[in-house]
Amino acid sequence: MDLLVPFDAVEPKTRLAPVLDADERSAFALAMLRDVLDALRRADREPTVLATAALDAVDATVVVDDRSLDAAVNDRLDGETAVVMADLPLIGPTTVADLFAPDADVVLAPGLGGGTNAFVARHPDFEVDYHGASIRDHRRIAREAGLDVAEVDSRRLATDVDEPADLAELLLHGEGRAVEWLADADVSLSIEGGRVGVERR
Amino acid sequence: MDLLVPFDAVEPKTRLAPVLDADERSAFALAMLRDVLDALRRADREPTVLATAALDAVDATVVVDDRSLDAAVNDRLDGETAVVMADLPLIGPTTVADLFAPDADVVLAPGLGGGTNAFVARHPDFEVDYHGASIRDHRRIAREAGLDVAEVDSRRLATDVDEPADLAELLLHGEGRAVEWLADADVSLSIEGGRVGVERR
Repeated sequence: MDLLVPFDAVEPKTRLAPVLDADERSAFALAMLRDVLDALRRADREPTVLATAALDAVDATVVVDDRSLDAAVNDRLDGETAVVMADLPLIGPTTVADLFAPDADVVLAPGLGGGTNAFVARHPDFEVDYHGASIRDHRRIAREAGLDVAEVDSRRLATDVDEPADLAELLLHGEGRAVEWLADADVSLSIEGGRVGVERR
Repeated sequence: MDLLVPFDAVEPKTRLAPVLDADERSAFALAMLRDVLDALRRADREPTVLATAALDAVDATVVVDDRSLDAAVNDRLDGETAVVMADLPLIGPTTVADLFAPDADVVLAPGLGGGTNAFVARHPDFEVDYHGASIRDHRRIAREAGLDVAEVDSRRLATDVDEPADLAELLLHGEGRAVEWLADADVSLSIEGGRVGVERR
């Protein structure tokens, strides 16, 4: 089974701009990618990074495709293929095993907010559409193709890091390069009025 | 093992005020409570509702304790006790089984934002402190008492419904009374600029 990790190598994680500048966002995105690659390898999976531009800073096979995410992924869904997003620094080898465990044509891992953070497709008729609330589209696409679908119930797979509030989840539950990078950048948890956020010294 | 479901029967879910008025918040909170009680019973667990005021609208044993949540729960942690919050309408019997599965003194189910949405305590030395990022306090309390801790990785257990944005998760993934109540109240998903939220007609 092919295992792809899409990665925006040009301008990643723009929604973190309130906390990190452009160079920092690139470095942090790379730290998250490395955490994801580690988790996959520790689960005995061999990932290929599907990057929007050349990337020599990771120890993995990198394929460059500068088209849209939908086009780049759909072009590679001919055989059995899994896709795991690069901004899931909370996943570990157990989480990866949970993703591959269900014996279904399509296994979907919903992200918070309606995204699809990972999937396993064992049938060539599945295809992706990442716009909007993609988890609903992916359920529909699988159903219309007559495929059976399983969903993985994992907070770790559901937590993609896009916005400052998501950094709080990483600080609360993370271990690895990305959370160490945040600590080095003096990003820490803040608690105001019972709500958890982040602050930077 | 005792199984408690704390419930604010006086003024529940105030942070949903931007979408629901006070009577609606009470009705919706009750629909979520019933979904939670259903999930627990379908997993062959017998819950007791720990309510802040009398409540005759649910088909379960209700114990009234108008003290703070910490005081009311800690007073009842003498034997083996589990606590599951009443605002987790995404849980089902499988999720409940996952919560009780780990063989540890204390099993914690983190909520998004640092809360503790459910736990199983099999040792009387565990106690709760729900203020702030309680998952960190609960890890510390268990560690300082020399107890071994397991954590459950579940998006469904992690999704407590407190704010309008949380309603989107229920609309995306829910089934049962709470999501039906929302549909009847004309609350539906909205998608703006790739972000998922809710709107009310």
